Amino acid sequence: MIGIGVIGYGYWGPNLVRNFMERSDATVRHLSDLDAGRLAVAKARYPTIVTSTDYTEMLSDPKVDAVVIATPVATHYPLAKAILESGRHVLIEKPMTDRSETAEELIALAARKGKVIMVDHTFIYSGPVRKMKEIIDSGELGELYYVDSVRVNLGLFQQDVNVLWDLGAHDIAIMNWLIGSEPLAVSAIGAAHFKDGAEDIAYMTALYPNNCIAHLHTNWLAPVKVRMTLIGGSRRMIVYDDMEPSEKIKVYDKGMSVTTREDIYRILVQYRAGDMHAPRLDQTEPLSAECAHFLDCIRTGATPITGGELGLSVVRILDAAQRSLKEQGRLVPLRGSAEA
Amino acid sequence: MIGIGVIGYGYWGPNLVRNFMERSDATVRHLSDLDAGRLAVAKARYPTIVTSTDYTEMLSDPKVDAVVIATPVATHYPLAKAILESGRHVLIEKPMTDRSETAEELIALAARKGKVIMVDHTFIYSGPVRKMKEIIDSGELGELYYVDSVRVNLGLFQQDVNVLWDLGAHDIAIMNWLIGSEPLAVSAIGAAHFKDGAEDIAYMTALYPNNCIAHLHTNWLAPVKVRMTLIGGSRRMIVYDDMEPSEKIKVYDKGMSVTTREDIYRILVQYRAGDMHAPRLDQTEPLSAECAHFLDCIRTGATPITGGELGLSVVRILDAAQRSLKEQGRLVPLRGSAEA
Amino acid sequence: MIGIGVIGYGYWGPNLVRNFMERSDATVRHLSDLDAGRLAVAKARYPTIVTSTDYTEMLSDPKVDAVVIATPVATHYPLAKAILESGRHVLIEKPMTDRSETAEELIALAARKGKVIMVDHTFIYSGPVRKMKEIIDSGELGELYYVDSVRVNLGLFQQDVNVLWDLGAHDIAIMNWLIGSEPLAVSAIGAAHFKDGAEDIAYMTALYPNNCIAHLHTNWLAPVKVRMTLIGGSRRMIVYDDMEPSEKIKVYDKGMSVTTREDIYRILVQYRAGDMHAPRLDQTEPLSAECAHFLDCIRTGATPITGGELGLSVVRILDAAQRSLKEQGRLVPLRGSAEA
Amino acid sequence: MIGIGVIGYGYWGPNLVRNFMERSDATVRHLSDLDAGRLAVAKARYPTIVTSTDYTEMLSDPKVDAVVIATPVATHYPLAKAILESGRHVLIEKPMTDRSETAEELIALAARKGKVIMVDHTFIYSGPVRKMKEIIDSGELGELYYVDSVRVNLGLFQQDVNVLWDLGAHDIAIMNWLIGSEPLAVSAIGAAHFKDGAEDIAYMTALYPNNCIAHLHTNWLAPVKVRMTLIGGSRRMIVYDDMEPSEKIKVYDKGMSVTTREDIYRILVQYRAGDMHAPRLDQTEPLSAECAHFLDCIRTGATPITGGELGLSVVRILDAAQRSLKEQGRLVPLRGSAEA
Repeated sequence: MIGIGVIGYGYWGPNLVRNFMERSDATVRHLSDLDAGRLAVAKARYPTIVTSTDYTEMLSDPKVDAVVIATPVATHYPLAKAILESGRHVLIEKPMTDRSETAEELIALAARKGKVIMVDHTFIYSGPVRKMKEIIDSGELGELYYVDSVRVNLGLFQQDVNVLWDLGAHDIAIMNWLIGSEPLAVSAIGAAHFKDGAEDIAYMTALYPNNCIAHLHTNWLAPVKVRMTLIGGSRRMIVYDDMEPSEKIKVYDKGMSVTTREDIYRILVQYRAGDMHAPRLDQTEPLSAECAHFLDCIRTGATPITGGELGLSVVRILDAAQRSLKEQGRLVPLRGSAEA
Repeated sequence: MIGIGVIGYGYWGPNLVRNFMERSDATVRHLSDLDAGRLAVAKARYPTIVTSTDYTEMLSDPKVDAVVIATPVATHYPLAKAILESGRHVLIEKPMTDRSETAEELIALAARKGKVIMVDHTFIYSGPVRKMKEIIDSGELGELYYVDSVRVNLGLFQQDVNVLWDLGAHDIAIMNWLIGSEPLAVSAIGAAHFKDGAEDIAYMTALYPNNCIAHLHTNWLAPVKVRMTLIGGSRRMIVYDDMEPSEKIKVYDKGMSVTTREDIYRILVQYRAGDMHAPRLDQTEPLSAECAHFLDCIRTGATPITGGELGLSVVRILDAAQRSLKEQGRLVPLRGSAEA
Repeated sequence: MIGIGVIGYGYWGPNLVRNFMERSDATVRHLSDLDAGRLAVAKARYPTIVTSTDYTEMLSDPKVDAVVIATPVATHYPLAKAILESGRHVLIEKPMTDRSETAEELIALAARKGKVIMVDHTFIYSGPVRKMKEIIDSGELGELYYVDSVRVNLGLFQQDVNVLWDLGAHDIAIMNWLIGSEPLAVSAIGAAHFKDGAEDIAYMTALYPNNCIAHLHTNWLAPVKVRMTLIGGSRRMIVYDDMEPSEKIKVYDKGMSVTTREDIYRILVQYRAGDMHAPRLDQTEPLSAECAHFLDCIRTGATPITGGELGLSVVRILDAAQRSLKEQGRLVPLRGSAEA
Repeated sequence: MIGIGVIGYGYWGPNLVRNFMERSDATVRHLSDLDAGRLAVAKARYPTIVTSTDYTEMLSDPKVDAVVIATPVATHYPLAKAILESGRHVLIEKPMTDRSETAEELIALAARKGKVIMVDHTFIYSGPVRKMKEIIDSGELGELYYVDSVRVNLGLFQQDVNVLWDLGAHDIAIMNWLIGSEPLAVSAIGAAHFKDGAEDIAYMTALYPNNCIAHLHTNWLAPVKVRMTLIGGSRRMIVYDDMEPSEKIKVYDKGMSVTTREDIYRILVQYRAGDMHAPRLDQTEPLSAECAHFLDCIRTGATPITGGELGLSVVRILDAAQRSLKEQGRLVPLRGSAEA
């Protein structure tokens, strides 16, 4: 039975607590939040959990083996540092930290302490993303040409980061994982419409090795939620629509080859040229699979799929994108980037 | 009865011929195409039209008042020049020409000859785009924050331009017209996956006055047709999905204001926060409205909505985007741009 | 603090337990299921609940004020009877019982005991259905012409009733409530494809007063979930698509009146003739609203919206439909039906 | 070159004229309509066609080999009779006639005269319906359980028949052709909301051999166009959504077999249990394929796919449904029905 502490009971914290509480091989022993009202909500539902507005209390409970951080980004580094130094495993909400130097420091600290450091890039554990990884790794798509992601919704509520750090962290992790490498350079451009100056719309392009181009549209001023990714290869292409209730992943054949002018005209009025296939997807809650993986890594010492390295890479890309944003689209090479 | 000549009977030419033939105030007298097979197809359907592989024949028929150009982009300038010099009105398929200097020259020539020059930016005449223009001009959206367009499909068949010149010309015309001004600067980035080196994927960002940001995703390697535009304002937002059979235009209220942490969490799991309204749209074929407008301008001497100025602005933006593409996203200011 | 007992922890029971456990004015004290494995699952999550394979144990706990029945239909009557006789309020999963005589008997018993009897017709408490009720009651639709419901999915797993009793009970409750009356007669026809003889496809038509026709398609052999209701009135019409993530309720204007032959041809190629409006919907979990209402009725003695009368009416309609099914569509008048 | 006469230039006539005019092996020589205004519209577009308000004129032109009837249903029988008696082939808009006796008489007359009689059941020639036929005939679906069709739209404009005769004729032809037999009996129920008494909503159930049940929802009072057919077999199932721009045909695997209670609960919250496949469809205009087939049958003497037999069967089913409608759902056996 692995003892868990959770810091932060805002939007995402309740999902983390629920998932660890539903398991038979772990339990949440401590919960901390600065807002006593939020703690009362949790207590009513989970009377056995010890709550406190002071997170350091859980660090003095020897039965707490691992701590989960679900707080604003700016606090990730100091909290994770304290947790690791106390000799505990740590699971950090995305993005890992707010600049790459601190992420690097945490990875080194975890290694020194022999503890698991994992970042909560939940989508990597979802049925659709795992199915796409399986399809890409099988070579079914052929050569990978592009990955295009749109992640937009009403959301001008995040206080300490811009929209790219908030929404984009998801897609950057997905892109890195699916493509299997890191970008060589990024370009980003955006706009801020409110007084605090943080971008509420941002576009990022990442140039990956082998002429694979990735692009990301993040937007907090959109009327509806859109989460759509197009992945193009030389043989097949994927449309991943996470808002679609039934068919989130569709795989399209490129269709017949075009040889005559009449072929071209025919293609131009069609919606698609080849067959489509929508595979059945694992419906397991992604966070549930992620929590199981975290506990596994604690028990076996394995490196998490979404460990420090992936978390750092996402922060490094966001760092570079931030610099490009300031220079309105200038291409920024990635320091130390390398194919995975 | 206005006499029309048409040059080019490829993908779009047949639609132009059909629309002019169905009118009672105009008729197509001449049709020219380099491919005799295409001319035979047209002749079977419209036995009264004189066909020729030499377009200059129509310029010696005094009953031809106006000529429509539906040929590859590189030929637009010499053809339009010859037509205007022969003292005829001209309607040019988009984009107007392949560089801004020649577009400027054609505008000057048309003015000197006192003839109508119009560019076939068909979408400007469509029910959905006209409805959006009406909504924006009414002030219903509030301050305009962004316009985001996606126009992707299988289409690696265009030989003489890249994907931005081909697909992007549509959206750039729409953006300029809806926003009512020209961008101050553009940034573009893309990738070419085939040997001829023309980009098959390209992203363009255009910075318009008043902090309005516009973005465009064009892609010839996409498995399905997507034509979607999001327009965000301070009060309301529009989703325009041209592939949607029934509800192409949806107008969303921003919804309730958010004051507490719980409000935020509630919003984050929702798809939208306010009411949505999908106005009935005029179903007239856009090209039919456009042809009527062209004939009107010929009769009255009025300046077309999609006249030389809009056509030139689109080419000027494409020119700048082309330079930015070569420098991988560097922001390129627009020469001579000004608010309309 | 109202003490709750729950009988049955299969598909629906866990949702009932969770909702009562999350409230501050009630708590689940006892849970009973014949399957000890299911009880262990519940116990891990809610350690404070007393579990037993014998439901009579909870009836000897004086702190249990009300019992919720979430068991197969055939057991509803004996369980509800025992609960009411023990002087407790009862909430029964739909359908209330498997024939109208026993439903009538339970209503009389609850009245005699002065206890609340409520049926778990959850959809009545959902945002979309409540919004439709509000629209219909406002007279916005005009005269009501028809209600057409489709509720189909893979589901050949229910053992003790046919598809109409299983899936149809939802829509019959919704129809009665929205129309505000009971049908005068019903016709039903269906087919059974497996050995036990219960219909896995069934169609039911119900003739309501004022020439309002209602129809229901239930099907356990459908490849995808469909839950769609069309409601037609003389002025406006509603499409309710419960699988649609964002716009479950769409209200359509009838559109312009048709006077000429050309108008007709124009209408025939269109998807719709008038504006559409999709109101924002309350996102509260329906079962949460229902549990709150049950507790309210217990405290105030009010009659539940989905009380015995509605539950009985649904069973009475299902009874009549069952007779019609046996006679392959013959119209069966409803005994004792009357406008609500 | 086969000479064609067309009677009726209302909603559908223009499509017939256009399709025959675009062919190289046929031409429309005569067009007749009672409305001179409609003839003028046609004349402007096709100056070579002889028009007349008296259809008998075309019967004296020896170059007219075949006549197409696109007039109201009540006129089909007398017109077709006159055409066949004049020794010409005939293509009749659906439904063939307004009662089965006259349809039988026309078949006998065509046989006697050795002429082709064909009914314009256009959908039989469409890509999606032909693909479904191919799938069903391959045995891929397994045993056929049901066919369920919805065909609804705003359409209270047809004067001489009710909604079932108008819209239902399409689906009945499709059902017969796909199932490969005729129903043994039908039940129908509906409602009329306007003074002329014709049903504007009607539901029909048809019991086919081998326990295959077919159902049809036709409705002229629906806010949006819906054309959806579900076809269920023991192994696979088809969803045919004719309003879907890109994926009209989806084939679903039944998915994994269910063995435990937990399996069942898992299935119940899912949208589907197996893979889905959307085959590429032939995009040829159905009416174009149909016209080609009509001309082929004229040349070769072959019996049309949608010949008199299918046309008669549709009328016979509509006749029986009409009787059932009058008796509010009573099952009516089909006279003379037999497996095809």
